Amino acid sequence: MAALFITFEGGEGAGKSTHCRLLAERLREMGREVTLTREPGGSPSAEQIRELLVSGATNRWSPEAEALLNYAARDSHLRETIRPALAGGRIVICDRFIDSTRAYQGYAGGCDMGLIDVLEKRIVGNDRPKLTFVFDLDVAQGLERAGGRATPGEDRFERKGLGFHQRLRNGFLAIAKAEPVRCKVIDASGPVEATAAAVWRHVEPLVS
Amino acid sequence: MAALFITFEGGEGAGKSTHCRLLAERLREMGREVTLTREPGGSPSAEQIRELLVSGATNRWSPEAEALLNYAARDSHLRETIRPALAGGRIVICDRFIDSTRAYQGYAGGCDMGLIDVLEKRIVGNDRPKLTFVFDLDVAQGLERAGGRATPGEDRFERKGLGFHQRLRNGFLAIAKAEPVRCKVIDASGPVEATAAAVWRHVEPLVS
Repeated sequence: MAALFITFEGGEGAGKSTHCRLLAERLREMGREVTLTREPGGSPSAEQIRELLVSGATNRWSPEAEALLNYAARDSHLRETIRPALAGGRIVICDRFIDSTRAYQGYAGGCDMGLIDVLEKRIVGNDRPKLTFVFDLDVAQGLERAGGRATPGEDRFERKGLGFHQRLRNGFLAIAKAEPVRCKVIDASGPVEATAAAVWRHVEPLVS
Repeated sequence: MAALFITFEGGEGAGKSTHCRLLAERLREMGREVTLTREPGGSPSAEQIRELLVSGATNRWSPEAEALLNYAARDSHLRETIRPALAGGRIVICDRFIDSTRAYQGYAGGCDMGLIDVLEKRIVGNDRPKLTFVFDLDVAQGLERAGGRATPGEDRFERKGLGFHQRLRNGFLAIAKAEPVRCKVIDASGPVEATAAAVWRHVEPLVS
Protein backbone atom coordinates (compact mmCIF):
# COMPACT_ATOMS: atom_id res chain seq x y z
CA MET A 1 0.00 0.00 0.00
CA ALA A 2 1.20 3.51 -0.77
CA ALA A 3 1.94 5.84 2.10
CA LEU A 4 -0.23 8.93 2.41
CA PHE A 5 0.09 12.03 4.61
CA ILE A 6 -3.14 13.93 5.45
CA THR A 7 -3.44 16.90 7.82
CA PHE A 8 -6.42 18.67 9.39
CA GLU A 9 -6.19 22.38 10.07
CA GLY A 10 -8.42 25.18 11.36
CA GLY A 11 -9.31 27.28 14.37
CA GLU A 12 -10.63 26.24 17.77
CA GLY A 13 -13.77 24.11 18.03
CA ALA A 14 -14.03 23.29 14.33
CA GLY A 15 -14.15 19.52 14.90
CA LYS A 16 -10.71 18.59 13.55
CA SER A 17 -9.97 15.98 16.22
CA THR A 18 -13.33 14.26 15.78
CA HIS A 19 -12.87 14.04 12.01
CA CYS A 20 -9.26 12.85 12.27
CA ARG A 21 -10.60 9.96 14.37
CA LEU A 22 -13.57 9.24 12.08
CA LEU A 23 -11.34 9.20 9.00
CA ALA A 24 -8.82 6.90 10.73
CA GLU A 25 -11.62 4.48 11.66
CA ARG A 26 -13.00 4.41 8.12
CA LEU A 27 -9.56 3.71 6.63
CA ARG A 28 -8.82 1.00 9.19
CA GLU A 29 -12.12 -0.67 8.32
CA MET A 30 -10.82 -0.80 4.73
CA GLY A 31 -7.76 -2.65 6.04
CA ARG A 32 -5.34 0.25 5.83
CA GLU A 33 -2.73 0.85 8.52
CA VAL A 34 -3.17 4.30 9.98
CA THR A 35 -1.03 6.43 12.30
CA LEU A 36 -3.22 9.03 14.01
CA THR A 37 -1.16 11.81 15.53
CA ARG A 38 -1.32 15.48 16.50
CA GLU A 39 0.65 18.69 16.91
CA PRO A 40 2.14 20.25 18.84
CA GLY A 41 3.32 16.87 20.11
CA GLY A 42 3.18 13.44 18.55
CA SER A 43 6.46 12.13 20.04
CA PRO A 44 7.55 12.00 23.69
CA SER A 45 9.99 14.93 23.40
CA ALA A 46 7.55 16.97 21.32
CA GLU A 47 4.80 16.45 23.90
CA GLN A 48 7.10 18.08 26.48
CA ILE A 49 7.37 21.13 24.21
CA ARG A 50 3.56 21.08 23.81
CA GLU A 51 3.20 21.61 27.55
CA LEU A 52 5.30 24.78 27.31
CA LEU A 53 3.24 26.07 24.37
CA VAL A 54 -0.35 25.48 25.46
CA SER A 55 -0.18 26.51 29.12
CA GLY A 56 0.66 29.67 31.05
CA ALA A 57 0.15 33.38 30.36
CA THR A 58 -1.05 34.25 26.85
CA ASN A 59 1.98 36.52 26.36
CA ARG A 60 4.63 34.22 27.85
CA TRP A 61 6.16 33.54 24.41
CA SER A 62 6.59 35.94 21.51
CA PRO A 63 5.13 34.72 18.19
CA GLU A 64 8.72 34.09 17.04
CA ALA A 65 9.52 31.92 20.08
CA GLU A 66 6.23 30.04 19.53
CA ALA A 67 7.21 29.34 15.92
CA LEU A 68 10.64 28.04 17.03
CA LEU A 69 9.13 25.83 19.74
CA ASN A 70 6.59 24.47 17.26
CA TYR A 71 9.33 23.66 14.76
CA ALA A 72 11.58 22.04 17.39
CA ALA A 73 8.61 19.82 18.33
CA ARG A 74 7.82 19.20 14.64
CA ASP A 75 11.39 18.08 13.99
CA SER A 76 11.10 15.47 16.74
CA HIS A 77 7.61 14.45 15.55
CA LEU A 78 8.82 14.00 11.97
CA ARG A 79 11.88 11.97 12.96
CA GLU A 80 10.28 9.76 15.58
CA THR A 81 6.72 9.31 14.29
CA ILE A 82 5.77 10.65 10.85
CA ARG A 83 8.75 9.63 8.68
CA PRO A 84 8.99 6.08 10.08
CA ALA A 85 5.23 5.60 9.54
CA LEU A 86 5.35 6.86 5.95
CA ALA A 87 8.43 4.74 5.26
CA GLY A 88 6.38 1.74 6.40
CA GLY A 89 3.62 2.49 3.88
CA ARG A 90 1.14 3.74 6.48
CA ILE A 91 -1.42 6.50 6.18
CA VAL A 92 -0.53 9.33 8.57
CA ILE A 93 -3.38 11.55 9.76
CA CYS A 94 -2.20 14.56 11.74
CA ASP A 95 -4.32 17.00 13.75
CA ARG A 96 -2.55 20.33 12.94
CA PHE A 97 0.77 20.70 11.12
CA ILE A 98 2.67 23.37 9.14
CA ASP A 99 -0.37 25.52 8.37
CA SER A 100 -1.16 26.02 12.06
CA THR A 101 2.24 27.69 12.50
CA ARG A 102 1.56 29.96 9.51
CA ALA A 103 -1.94 30.82 10.75
CA TYR A 104 -1.39 31.11 14.53
CA GLN A 105 2.13 32.58 14.69
CA GLY A 106 2.23 34.20 11.24
CA TYR A 107 -1.16 35.60 10.19
CA ALA A 108 -2.70 35.94 13.67
CA GLY A 109 0.43 36.47 15.81
CA GLY A 110 2.49 38.66 13.50
CA CYS A 111 5.62 36.49 13.30
CA ASP A 112 7.66 37.28 10.21
CA MET A 113 6.52 34.89 7.45
CA GLY A 114 10.06 34.75 6.03
CA LEU A 115 11.27 33.07 9.23
CA ILE A 116 8.43 30.54 9.04
CA ASP A 117 9.30 29.83 5.40
CA VAL A 118 12.92 29.10 6.31
CA LEU A 119 11.89 26.80 9.16
CA GLU A 120 9.45 24.88 6.98
CA LYS A 121 12.03 24.38 4.25
CA ARG A 122 14.80 23.24 6.64
CA ILE A 123 12.76 21.06 9.00
CA VAL A 124 9.96 19.62 6.83
CA GLY A 125 11.71 19.56 3.45
CA ASN A 126 9.81 17.31 1.05
CA ASP A 127 7.66 15.71 3.73
CA ARG A 128 4.71 18.05 3.24
CA PRO A 129 1.19 16.59 3.39
CA LYS A 130 -0.40 15.38 0.19
CA LEU A 131 -3.85 16.54 1.34
CA THR A 132 -4.86 19.15 3.94
CA PHE A 133 -8.36 19.87 5.20
CA VAL A 134 -8.95 23.44 6.35
CA PHE A 135 -11.98 23.33 8.65
CA ASP A 136 -13.76 26.65 8.41
CA LEU A 137 -16.22 27.93 10.99
CA ASP A 138 -17.61 31.23 12.25
CA VAL A 139 -15.19 32.42 14.94
CA ALA A 140 -17.77 32.97 17.70
CA GLN A 141 -19.31 29.55 17.05
CA GLY A 142 -15.92 27.87 17.20
CA LEU A 143 -14.88 29.49 20.47
CA GLU A 144 -18.25 28.60 22.00
CA ARG A 145 -17.78 24.94 20.99
CA ALA A 146 -14.16 24.89 22.17
CA GLY A 147 -14.84 26.62 25.49
CA GLY A 148 -16.76 23.67 26.84
CA ARG A 149 -14.19 21.02 26.18
CA ALA A 150 -10.59 22.34 26.32
CA THR A 151 -8.24 20.04 28.21
CA PRO A 152 -7.67 21.71 31.60
CA GLY A 153 -4.60 23.97 31.41
CA GLU A 154 -4.50 23.77 27.58
CA ASP A 155 -6.45 26.94 26.83
CA ARG A 156 -3.64 29.45 26.31
CA PHE A 157 -4.64 30.13 22.67
CA GLU A 158 -8.39 30.06 23.29
CA ARG A 159 -7.91 32.88 25.78
CA LYS A 160 -6.54 35.22 23.09
CA GLY A 161 -9.10 37.80 21.91
CA LEU A 162 -11.70 37.66 19.11
CA GLY A 163 -9.49 39.77 16.82
CA PHE A 164 -6.76 37.12 17.07
CA HIS A 165 -9.22 34.37 16.12
CA GLN A 166 -10.60 36.39 13.21
CA ARG A 167 -7.07 36.88 11.82
CA LEU A 168 -6.53 33.18 12.35
CA ARG A 169 -9.58 32.25 10.27
CA ASN A 170 -8.58 34.65 7.50
CA GLY A 171 -5.05 33.23 7.60
CA PHE A 172 -6.20 29.65 7.11
CA LEU A 173 -8.41 30.75 4.19
CA ALA A 174 -5.47 32.60 2.62
CA ILE A 175 -3.29 29.50 2.91
CA ALA A 176 -5.98 27.36 1.25
CA LYS A 177 -6.35 29.89 -1.55
CA ALA A 178 -2.61 29.88 -2.20
CA GLU A 179 -2.37 26.06 -2.37
CA PRO A 180 -5.68 24.85 -3.76
CA VAL A 181 -4.38 21.46 -4.91
CA ARG A 182 -3.22 20.45 -1.43
CA CYS A 183 -5.76 22.35 0.70
CA LYS A 184 -9.51 21.74 0.72
CA VAL A 185 -11.72 24.10 2.70
CA ILE A 186 -14.43 22.22 4.58
CA ASP A 187 -17.53 23.97 5.94
CA ALA A 188 -17.47 22.80 9.55
CA SER A 189 -20.78 24.37 10.61
CA GLY A 190 -23.05 21.47 9.68
CA PRO A 191 -23.75 18.07 11.25
CA VAL A 192 -20.89 15.59 11.73
CA GLU A 193 -22.18 13.25 9.00
CA ALA A 194 -22.15 15.99 6.34
CA THR A 195 -18.64 17.06 7.27
CA ALA A 196 -17.38 13.47 7.26
CA ALA A 197 -18.88 12.97 3.80
CA ALA A 198 -17.17 16.12 2.53
CA VAL A 199 -13.84 14.86 3.86
CA TRP A 200 -14.31 11.43 2.37
CA ARG A 201 -15.00 12.78 -1.12
CA HIS A 202 -11.39 14.04 -1.20
CA VAL A 203 -9.77 11.01 0.45
CA GLU A 204 -11.53 8.26 -1.49
CA PRO A 205 -9.77 8.85 -4.84
CA LEU A 206 -6.40 8.61 -3.08
CA VAL A 207 -7.02 5.26 -1.39
CA SER A 208 -9.09 3.27 -3.89
CA MET B 1 26.44 54.91 33.15
CA ALA B 2 26.59 53.36 29.70
CA ALA B 3 25.13 49.89 29.28
CA LEU B 4 27.53 47.12 28.30
CA PHE B 5 26.91 43.54 27.17
CA ILE B 6 29.68 40.99 27.81
CA THR B 7 29.47 37.23 27.15
CA PHE B 8 31.67 34.29 28.15
CA GLU B 9 31.96 31.32 25.79
CA GLY B 10 33.87 28.05 25.58
CA GLY B 11 33.66 24.31 26.14
CA GLU B 12 32.97 22.35 29.31
CA GLY B 13 35.10 22.95 32.41
CA ALA B 14 36.86 26.06 31.13
CA GLY B 15 35.88 28.19 34.13
CA LYS B 16 33.36 30.51 32.44
CA SER B 17 30.91 30.58 35.36
CA THR B 18 33.64 31.35 37.90
CA HIS B 19 34.98 34.22 35.83
CA CYS B 20 31.50 35.62 35.11
CA ARG B 21 31.04 35.83 38.87
CA LEU B 22 34.50 37.30 39.55
CA LEU B 23 34.02 39.98 36.89
CA ALA B 24 30.56 40.85 38.23
CA GLU B 25 32.01 41.24 41.73
CA ARG B 26 34.82 43.48 40.54
CA LEU B 27 32.42 45.72 38.61
CA ARG B 28 30.01 45.93 41.54
CA GLU B 29 32.89 46.98 43.79
CA MET B 30 33.41 49.87 41.35
CA GLY B 31 29.79 50.85 41.93
CA ARG B 32 28.42 49.54 38.64
CA GLU B 33 25.05 47.80 38.44
CA VAL B 34 25.50 44.33 37.00
CA THR B 35 23.04 41.71 35.76
CA LEU B 36 24.67 38.28 35.88
CA THR B 37 22.80 35.74 33.78
CA ARG B 38 23.28 32.54 31.78
CA GLU B 39 22.10 30.49 28.85
CA PRO B 40 20.26 28.40 28.08
CA GLY B 41 17.91 30.04 30.58
CA GLY B 42 18.01 33.45 32.24
CA SER B 43 14.24 33.99 32.40
CA PRO B 44 11.55 31.75 33.94
CA SER B 45 10.25 30.48 30.59
CA ALA B 46 13.75 30.04 29.18
CA GLU B 47 14.79 27.99 32.21
CA GLN B 48 11.97 25.55 31.38
CA ILE B 49 13.45 25.13 27.90
CA ARG B 50 16.89 24.63 29.49
CA GLU B 51 15.56 21.57 31.30
CA LEU B 52 14.55 20.03 27.96
CA LEU B 53 17.98 20.79 26.46
CA VAL B 54 20.40 19.65 29.14
CA SER B 55 18.77 16.39 30.27
CA GLY B 56 17.83 13.08 28.70
CA ALA B 57 19.39 10.93 25.97
CA THR B 58 22.26 12.55 24.05
CA ASN B 59 20.37 12.01 20.76
CA ARG B 60 16.91 13.11 21.93
CA TRP B 61 17.05 16.31 19.85
CA SER B 62 18.55 16.80 16.40
CA PRO B 63 21.10 19.65 16.17
CA GLU B 64 18.41 21.66 14.32
CA ALA B 65 15.85 21.16 17.11
CA GLU B 66 18.51 22.13 19.66
CA ALA B 67 19.22 25.34 17.75
CA LEU B 68 15.49 26.19 17.66
CA LEU B 69 15.05 25.46 21.38
CA ASN B 70 18.09 27.58 22.19
CA TYR B 71 16.74 30.48 20.14
CA ALA B 72 13.22 30.21 21.63
CA ALA B 73 14.84 30.42 25.07
CA ARG B 74 17.13 33.26 23.91
CA ASP B 75 14.14 35.25 22.66
CA SER B 76 12.53 35.02 26.11
CA HIS B 77 15.85 35.82 27.82
CA LEU B 78 16.40 38.90 25.64
CA ARG B 79 12.87 40.23 26.16
CA GLU B 80 12.55 39.55 29.86
CA THR B 81 16.10 40.00 31.17
CA ILE B 82 18.80 41.31 28.82
CA ARG B 83 17.04 44.16 26.97
CA PRO B 84 15.41 45.63 30.10
CA ALA B 85 18.79 45.54 31.91
CA LEU B 86 20.65 47.22 29.05
CA ALA B 87 17.86 49.81 28.72
CA GLY B 88 18.44 50.59 32.40
CA GLY B 89 22.13 51.28 31.81
CA ARG B 90 23.32 48.08 33.50
CA ILE B 91 26.27 45.87 32.60
CA VAL B 92 24.99 42.47 31.49
CA ILE B 93 27.37 39.51 31.90
CA CYS B 94 26.07 36.35 30.29
CA ASP B 95 27.48 32.82 30.66
CA ARG B 96 27.05 31.49 27.09
CA PHE B 97 25.14 33.23 24.28
CA ILE B 98 25.01 33.19 20.46
CA ASP B 99 28.44 31.63 19.97
CA SER B 100 27.50 28.53 21.95
CA THR B 101 24.73 27.81 19.43
CA ARG B 102 27.20 28.22 16.56
CA ALA B 103 29.81 26.01 18.25
CA TYR B 104 27.63 23.27 19.82
CA GLN B 105 24.86 22.92 17.23
CA GLY B 106 26.75 24.26 14.19
CA TYR B 107 30.44 23.33 14.25
CA ALA B 108 30.21 20.32 16.58
CA GLY B 109 26.65 19.12 15.89
CA GLY B 110 26.43 19.71 12.13
CA CYS B 111 23.37 21.98 12.09
CA ASP B 112 23.23 24.04 8.92
CA MET B 113 24.98 27.35 9.65
CA GLY B 114 22.57 29.20 7.33
CA LEU B 115 19.69 28.37 9.66
CA ILE B 116 21.67 29.61 12.66
CA ASP B 117 22.48 32.84 10.77
CA VAL B 118 18.79 33.48 10.09
CA LEU B 119 17.85 32.80 13.72
CA GLU B 120 20.55 35.13 15.04
CA LYS B 121 19.50 37.93 12.72
CA ARG B 122 15.77 37.63 13.51
CA ILE B 123 15.94 37.01 17.26
CA VAL B 124 19.04 38.91 18.41
CA GLY B 125 19.11 41.69 15.84
CA ASN B 126 21.39 44.50 17.00
CA ASP B 127 21.62 43.26 20.58
CA ARG B 128 24.87 41.40 20.05
CA PRO B 129 27.51 41.52 22.80
CA LYS B 130 30.11 44.26 22.68
CA LEU B 131 32.78 41.93 24.11
CA THR B 132 33.00 38.13 24.14
CA PHE B 133 35.56 36.00 25.97
CA VAL B 134 36.29 32.65 24.37
CA PHE B 135 37.79 30.46 27.10
CA ASP B 136 40.13 27.97 25.48
CA LEU B 137 41.32 24.78 27.12
CA ASP B 138 42.61 21.36 26.15
CA VAL B 139 39.54 19.17 25.62
CA ALA B 140 40.58 16.31 27.92
CA GLN B 141 41.49 18.76 30.69
CA GLY B 142 38.13 20.53 30.38
CA LEU B 143 36.07 17.34 30.50
CA GLU B 144 38.03 16.17 33.54
CA ARG B 145 37.33 19.45 35.33
CA ALA B 146 33.65 19.43 34.30
CA GLY B 147 33.05 15.80 35.21
CA GLY B 148 33.43 16.44 38.89
CA ARG B 149 30.97 19.25 39.19
CA ALA B 150 28.12 18.98 36.66
CA THR B 151 24.70 19.72 38.15
CA PRO B 152 23.00 16.31 38.53
CA GLY B 153 20.97 15.58 35.39
CA GLU B 154 22.61 18.42 33.43
CA ASP B 155 25.31 16.38 31.72
CA ARG B 156 23.69 15.65 28.35
CA PHE B 157 26.39 17.52 26.41
CA GLU B 158 29.31 16.34 28.54
CA ARG B 159 28.36 12.76 27.66
CA LYS B 160 28.94 13.35 23.94
CA GLY B 161 32.25 11.90 22.68
CA LEU B 162 35.73 13.40 22.53
CA GLY B 163 35.37 14.05 18.78
CA PHE B 164 32.35 16.27 19.49
CA HIS B 165 34.30 18.26 22.06
CA GLN B 166 37.29 18.65 19.74
CA ARG B 167 35.01 20.04 16.98
CA LEU B 168 33.50 22.31 19.62
CA ARG B 169 36.89 23.74 20.59
CA ASN B 170 37.86 24.28 16.94
CA GLY B 171 34.48 25.93 16.33
CA PHE B 172 34.93 28.45 19.13
CA LEU B 173 38.41 29.28 17.82
CA ALA B 174 37.04 29.75 14.29
CA ILE B 175 34.35 32.12 15.61
CA ALA B 176 36.98 34.17 17.48
CA LYS B 177 39.16 34.33 14.39
CA ALA B 178 36.25 35.59 12.26
CA GLU B 179 35.30 38.35 14.73
CA PRO B 180 38.53 39.46 16.40
CA VAL B 181 37.21 42.84 17.54
CA ARG B 182 34.37 41.34 19.58
CA CYS B 183 35.97 38.01 20.59
CA LYS B 184 39.03 37.63 22.80
CA VAL B 185 40.52 34.16 23.24
CA ILE B 186 41.56 33.55 26.84
CA ASP B 187 43.95 30.75 27.81
CA ALA B 188 41.95 29.01 30.53
CA SER B 189 44.61 26.50 31.55
CA GLY B 190 46.38 28.64 34.16
CA PRO B 191 45.50 29.72 37.70
CA VAL B 192 42.30 31.67 38.35
CA GLU B 193 44.18 34.90 39.14
CA ALA B 194 46.02 34.90 35.78
CA THR B 195 42.79 34.28 33.86
CA ALA B 196 40.93 36.99 35.79
CA ALA B 197 43.73 39.45 34.99
CA ALA B 198 43.55 38.56 31.29
CA VAL B 199 39.79 39.19 31.32
CA TRP B 200 40.15 42.48 33.15
CA ARG B 201 42.67 43.85 30.64
CA HIS B 202 39.88 43.82 28.02
CA VAL B 203 37.07 45.07 30.28
CA GLU B 204 38.89 47.92 31.99
CA PRO B 205 39.08 50.25 28.96
CA LEU B 206 35.30 49.89 28.47
CA VAL B 207 34.32 50.84 32.02
CA SER B 208 36.83 53.51 33.04
